[in-house]
Amino acid sequence: MSDVSVIGLGAMGSALAAALLKSGLSVTLWNRSPAKAEALVAKGAVAAASVKDAVEASKLVVACLLVYDTVYEAFEPAKDALAGRTLVNLTNGTPAQAREMAQWAATRGADYLDGGIMAVPPMIGQAEALILYSGAHAAFEAHGKTLGALGAAKYLGDDAGLAPLHDIALLTAMYGLFSGVTHAFALTGSETVPAEKFLPMLTNWLGAVMTWLPDMARRIDSGDYRSDVVSNLEMQAASFDNFIAASEGQGVSSELIAPMFQLLKKAVAAGYGDADQASLVEMIRTRPQVERQRAGG
Amino acid sequence: MSDVSVIGLGAMGSALAAALLKSGLSVTLWNRSPAKAEALVAKGAVAAASVKDAVEASKLVVACLLVYDTVYEAFEPAKDALAGRTLVNLTNGTPAQAREMAQWAATRGADYLDGGIMAVPPMIGQAEALILYSGAHAAFEAHGKTLGALGAAKYLGDDAGLAPLHDIALLTAMYGLFSGVTHAFALTGSETVPAEKFLPMLTNWLGAVMTWLPDMARRIDSGDYRSDVVSNLEMQAASFDNFIAASEGQGVSSELIAPMFQLLKKAVAAGYGDADQASLVEMIRTRPQVERQRAGG
Ligand SMILES: NC(=O)c1ccc[n+]([C@@H]2O[C@H](COP(=O)([O-])OP(=O)(O)OC[C@H]3O[C@@H](n4cnc5c(N)ncnc54)[C@H](OP(=O)(O)O)[C@@H]3O)[C@@H](O)[C@H]2O)c1
Ligand SMILES: NC(=O)c1ccc[n+]([C@@H]2O[C@H](COP(=O)([O-])OP(=O)(O)OC[C@H]3O[C@@H](n4cnc5c(N)ncnc54)[C@H](OP(=O)(O)O)[C@@H]3O)[C@@H](O)[C@H]2O)c1
Repeated sequence: MSDVSVIGLGAMGSALAAALLKSGLSVTLWNRSPAKAEALVAKGAVAAASVKDAVEASKLVVACLLVYDTVYEAFEPAKDALAGRTLVNLTNGTPAQAREMAQWAATRGADYLDGGIMAVPPMIGQAEALILYSGAHAAFEAHGKTLGALGAAKYLGDDAGLAPLHDIALLTAMYGLFSGVTHAFALTGSETVPAEKFLPMLTNWLGAVMTWLPDMARRIDSGDYRSDVVSNLEMQAASFDNFIAASEGQGVSSELIAPMFQLLKKAVAAGYGDADQASLVEMIRTRPQVERQRAGG
Repeated sequence: MSDVSVIGLGAMGSALAAALLKSGLSVTLWNRSPAKAEALVAKGAVAAASVKDAVEASKLVVACLLVYDTVYEAFEPAKDALAGRTLVNLTNGTPAQAREMAQWAATRGADYLDGGIMAVPPMIGQAEALILYSGAHAAFEAHGKTLGALGAAKYLGDDAGLAPLHDIALLTAMYGLFSGVTHAFALTGSETVPAEKFLPMLTNWLGAVMTWLPDMARRIDSGDYRSDVVSNLEMQAASFDNFIAASEGQGVSSELIAPMFQLLKKAVAAGYGDADQASLVEMIRTRPQVERQRAGG
């Protein structure tokens, strides 16, 4: 037996296996293309001949493959070996996929943890690498030390869908920030202002904007969107025309910022003109059940 | 004579006038609708009977009106009184509009400063209220103390267009951040995770993402977009499918994040698949002159 088996040795799986080895654990490996195991075997890992052998080798099995379909496909020959084991699936997916796989694991007698890695491979093994987990709580507790070798482990609850939910929420927030700064750098660059010159002002400003997020969160939770500053959605929609015109005038496509403009206009048309920025959360919800939630406080 | 005249007493102009009064300066006011001057007159300001009287009353004239057209319209009766004065225009506009107005002021013998207010009215007069200025440097120096009463004054250069350029760049960056967090809060809210519960994780994560901006800025300035982490645009585009599917599955419209997905796919199709995130700045530029700039380093 070894301490942990790692299934999938792509960029991320290899980083995970390396961090586990580095922390002194015994590691068994399996990858569809066996060559990717070589460097890790040189560092002391054991390459299994089959995925079934790999699953049988450890009580803790960590999977990191491309998408969920590939997890089912890869584990097909090993599915009867999963009983009594903990499967930690760090493959990116949706909350629905995670819940489905938790069911699938349960029918095979395995404990299931879903994980979302908020890091790139070079960060794995360091405290800055945040990894979100959800699913079987006892399994998380039992393997906490091993999982801690991969990065900062955060457990979100026993619903397996919570880790991918938070993962995707954080990543989409990141892409929003990237969209904004990409547009901003293109604008300042259009007048030959070096990005590094603009940077300190940009980061100070975004740091200030981030101090407004607690107010936004409070409003979302309470459903109280009455604007108490003089920057309600109507005024914001009015000034956005200017941003679009100025951007196009500077030779910068407005494609990344246009959807916010459309949403502001839609919100004003829907009667949210004197509401706060936070109310836009309501405007992108497409399910009536959320209305109930809000109404219920 | 008074120290400063304020033209335009909307939400912002009134806040500006109040801060100037509070700092002990003598202030003359004009607003199209005279009633808005009353509260400030009660605090010691003088209401001018005409915009011409207001301009004649001070060497420093601060304008804060709705849009640039309204500035031209409002100053029409006073345009021959501007000679020898400094006009500080804090109305939101585009770089092109600011340059045009700098010309217009020059033909009337006035020094011109354009300004961008990175604050809402309740912040005016405090150090957190950043106000960007560009245009006549000597005028900025001469009136620095007065302008400092409005907030933290930052001078960007003698090209009048620089203040609105930076203003719009910062605001669009802010709207990108808002887009991302709006989407993120809608996602976590779809599973009844309270926004205030998700908030600490979100702000920690965005704080981490912000530490990557210096690398982005360096790449943009150097034009070196080779990816050195394993998250190049091709991989990002591939995983974005998941974010869209998961969002729609959670009852959250993907309208705010979809343009980034489109851009990633466009970048991959254009041969940027193995490039870094920072290269997207090139993809939203619509002007060939920028190519020259980049080639020139
Ligand atoms: N890289 C990152 O920055 C990052 C960050 C966070 C999360 N993630 C997530 O981590 C997971 C893995 O990412 P990665 O960067 O390691 O991807 P990768 O380098 O492309 O590796 C993909 C892995 O999946 C395996 N695979 C694909 N199809 C398979 C199949 N049908 N049967 C068996 N194995 C199959 C590959 O095996 P072969 O070697 O045989 O092709 C390889 O081990 C993904 O879900 C990704 O979204 C990655
Ligand atoms: N409020 C903010 O949070 C904020 C933040 C940053 C920048 N700004 C910028 O500051 C400027 C003023 O904003 P605000 O919030 O004060 O707007 P506001 O409350 O709507 O006030 C508009 C002002 O413009 C005047 N005006 C409009 N059309 C006019 C015309 N044709 N002739 C003469 N005067 C005219 C109005 O006079 P009447 O009173 O007679 O209507 C009023 O004084 C805008 O460019 C805005 O983008 C505002």
